Amino acid sequence: MNETRLVAKQLQQKSEDSRLIKEARRALIDYLGCVLQARKEPKVQEFGRLWQQEGGKVNSLLGLHTTPERAALINGFAAHYLDFDDVQANFRGHPSAVIYSALLAIAPPSSQVRQVLQAFIAGVELAGKLGLALNPDHTVQGWHSTATIGTIAATGALCNLANASVDQTTRALSFATSQASGMSFQNGTDAKPLQAGLAARNAVTAFILSQSRGSFTANEDSLQFWGATLGFNETSFSLLGNDWYQPGQINKPGLWFKVHPFCSAALSGYEAAKMLWNKGVRWSDCVQVVVHYPPNGDRALNQQWPQTGQESKFSIEFIIWQVLKFGDVKDADFTARFVDSQFKIDVAKIVRKHDLATTSVTKRPTLVETVTRRGIVKQLVVMPLGSPNRPLSSEKLQEKLLMVLPKEKVAALVDLIVKKEAVLQEIYWLIQ
Amino acid sequence: MNETRLVAKQLQQKSEDSRLIKEARRALIDYLGCVLQARKEPKVQEFGRLWQQEGGKVNSLLGLHTTPERAALINGFAAHYLDFDDVQANFRGHPSAVIYSALLAIAPPSSQVRQVLQAFIAGVELAGKLGLALNPDHTVQGWHSTATIGTIAATGALCNLANASVDQTTRALSFATSQASGMSFQNGTDAKPLQAGLAARNAVTAFILSQSRGSFTANEDSLQFWGATLGFNETSFSLLGNDWYQPGQINKPGLWFKVHPFCSAALSGYEAAKMLWNKGVRWSDCVQVVVHYPPNGDRALNQQWPQTGQESKFSIEFIIWQVLKFGDVKDADFTARFVDSQFKIDVAKIVRKHDLATTSVTKRPTLVETVTRRGIVKQLVVMPLGSPNRPLSSEKLQEKLLMVLPKEKVAALVDLIVKKEAVLQEIYWLIQ
Repeated sequence: MNETRLVAKQLQQKSEDSRLIKEARRALIDYLGCVLQARKEPKVQEFGRLWQQEGGKVNSLLGLHTTPERAALINGFAAHYLDFDDVQANFRGHPSAVIYSALLAIAPPSSQVRQVLQAFIAGVELAGKLGLALNPDHTVQGWHSTATIGTIAATGALCNLANASVDQTTRALSFATSQASGMSFQNGTDAKPLQAGLAARNAVTAFILSQSRGSFTANEDSLQFWGATLGFNETSFSLLGNDWYQPGQINKPGLWFKVHPFCSAALSGYEAAKMLWNKGVRWSDCVQVVVHYPPNGDRALNQQWPQTGQESKFSIEFIIWQVLKFGDVKDADFTARFVDSQFKIDVAKIVRKHDLATTSVTKRPTLVETVTRRGIVKQLVVMPLGSPNRPLSSEKLQEKLLMVLPKEKVAALVDLIVKKEAVLQEIYWLIQ
Repeated sequence: MNETRLVAKQLQQKSEDSRLIKEARRALIDYLGCVLQARKEPKVQEFGRLWQQEGGKVNSLLGLHTTPERAALINGFAAHYLDFDDVQANFRGHPSAVIYSALLAIAPPSSQVRQVLQAFIAGVELAGKLGLALNPDHTVQGWHSTATIGTIAATGALCNLANASVDQTTRALSFATSQASGMSFQNGTDAKPLQAGLAARNAVTAFILSQSRGSFTANEDSLQFWGATLGFNETSFSLLGNDWYQPGQINKPGLWFKVHPFCSAALSGYEAAKMLWNKGVRWSDCVQVVVHYPPNGDRALNQQWPQTGQESKFSIEFIIWQVLKFGDVKDADFTARFVDSQFKIDVAKIVRKHDLATTSVTKRPTLVETVTRRGIVKQLVVMPLGSPNRPLSSEKLQEKLLMVLPKEKVAALVDLIVKKEAVLQEIYWLIQ
């Protein structure tokens, strides 16, 4: 049996492990918070209107009716628009934005929330396993894992939800590889959240095709061949079908959740800057700031001189500058049309170095070294708040929802997500 | 100005060169022939029904109403389903299946045919120029040019048709690179024509986004960065914006048109086998058949042991065996569910060698060497019938149409395509 079929077989499992389901619930709460935060944004509203379909039947999370592919596209764009959404380290991408977006575009409103959670767990498992096979080379090459691996992972999740046969799932995965695209040079533009939406859309296309009674054919060993096209050899994929849910990619290395809407690769540097501020370091004292990473540790942070708020999400320079100047970041700055003009002068003082040792994927070492007139003050952060080893508390996790929904509704939403028999429609009623 | 903007600027040109327009007309006649041949096929009908949209407004070539993206998907799948459609050598892909499919999904029925032809010429120009920059490495790596480069080229064509600004076109190209995917391991399955359809669909998505008043942003130097992600350096892309229409990729290296529905990489071998048959060589006389190619000259022919008719489109072994056994290929065999069981025994006699010298893209040298009991008989073909240097006559070109439409309708269709003021609606009336 080829590896793709082994994966298809694993994708039939519905995990009953309460630890995995708990984390899938946390991801759903965070995902809904990200979408609801983003739906106030003019570009998200315009994006939704653009793909709304007269006579369309499927309800996107923004409350617009359209086709299933377009609903997935809208959901994914909205969920990833603020770059506020969760991350998985082996995947090196954003699981919820792609997987939940596809699932909610396909799942009938009568679907049990629990089945959606189980499908999500399956999707994250596949994302993490593919990430293990391909990363870091895949992302270093310039591919955007959320979009490439995300398409395949979300397709697997859809097959799990629909109880697709091994044959159907094998074909669905193949149709997904045909569409697995997206590159990180789009970081800092609307094309980045677009790529998350496209991944969700492409998963829906792959799934619809695989379910058709037309029995459309596709290469059955697609994962291996896809890897070969990307330059990987067979052994990279030889263990994809092994050790599923032992202990489960959603728990190990686990999910990262964000408290601010910027790239997760900046989290350690942000926290280090906050600690330096608390030690009394101020921007005005700094002659130079050196940010130390392992090689490629800052690859996603491709904006050294951001011009827009959106670009500044991928700029460790902007984040550290904000913290050392004002004591913290201001979330609104990350959606502003322009970056503060003072920053454009000050940024010259910040340099990056790549002299830390590479470590495990659950760690993100960043050392911020401030050269002040009174000497050098340094701070190293390895596991920032929100990383799997320092998870957010339930209260902290609900903050995104609390900023856009009344307290009672948030409580009701969290209750629903925990309840075994709850169905999706109940969630939709609460958030519309 | 970056290379992508230079390309966007070139894409504004509407060629008035009558030689280029003549070839675009020939391509449109051939394209319509391919779609009409394919629409009788059960899988094409099922594919169309799958994406038909209740309440949808845009008419696909199969006469189904749906969204513009789905219309492009249906058109592209149908046009490429039989692998009977045209090819351009620098592109190493099928221009009409992707570009015309996208254009006809977006162009209002009141559009002048002439403007569609001009947009097609622009799309082929971009496809050929990108092919020059990336091939042969891109296809040798396993990418399916029709799908990858095709997405970008079709997007350029849509921008030309819509008189999009340089800014809009630059963004559209960037949204296209985000979706440029598809691999040749799908050769021999329904996922191959699917990839042509997906490329057309993705071009439509890129175009719609670029035209939105939402001004969605994307990296403006996308072509260069896309190339870098694929492993190419800057110089590959440094001449993309130069020498447009001098003389025009649609005329040099020009388009290949097929008389049988199999991969164009098999054309020379097919013709060599026919010449051997005419010289009296018969399969029953052969002890061994050696097919000689330049290195990678048979890369698209990835099916040495085809099991289905669809796979046999990519099998030089099957094609040569048919000719030496029966005097010619039978087109129906390429859509049959199974390959003749005698072939599975006979195929052991055929081997491939890669010992010819690599030559220019307008040539496709194939040497077929038959080892018979009476000695060795060889035949070399370099430029087969249908290649740009031995173009099909107008009569031969119209044969696909004549097989599915009455003579008068074919004559009326050809007249319309030549007429300066004709609009698309007139074509649709004739073919429905």
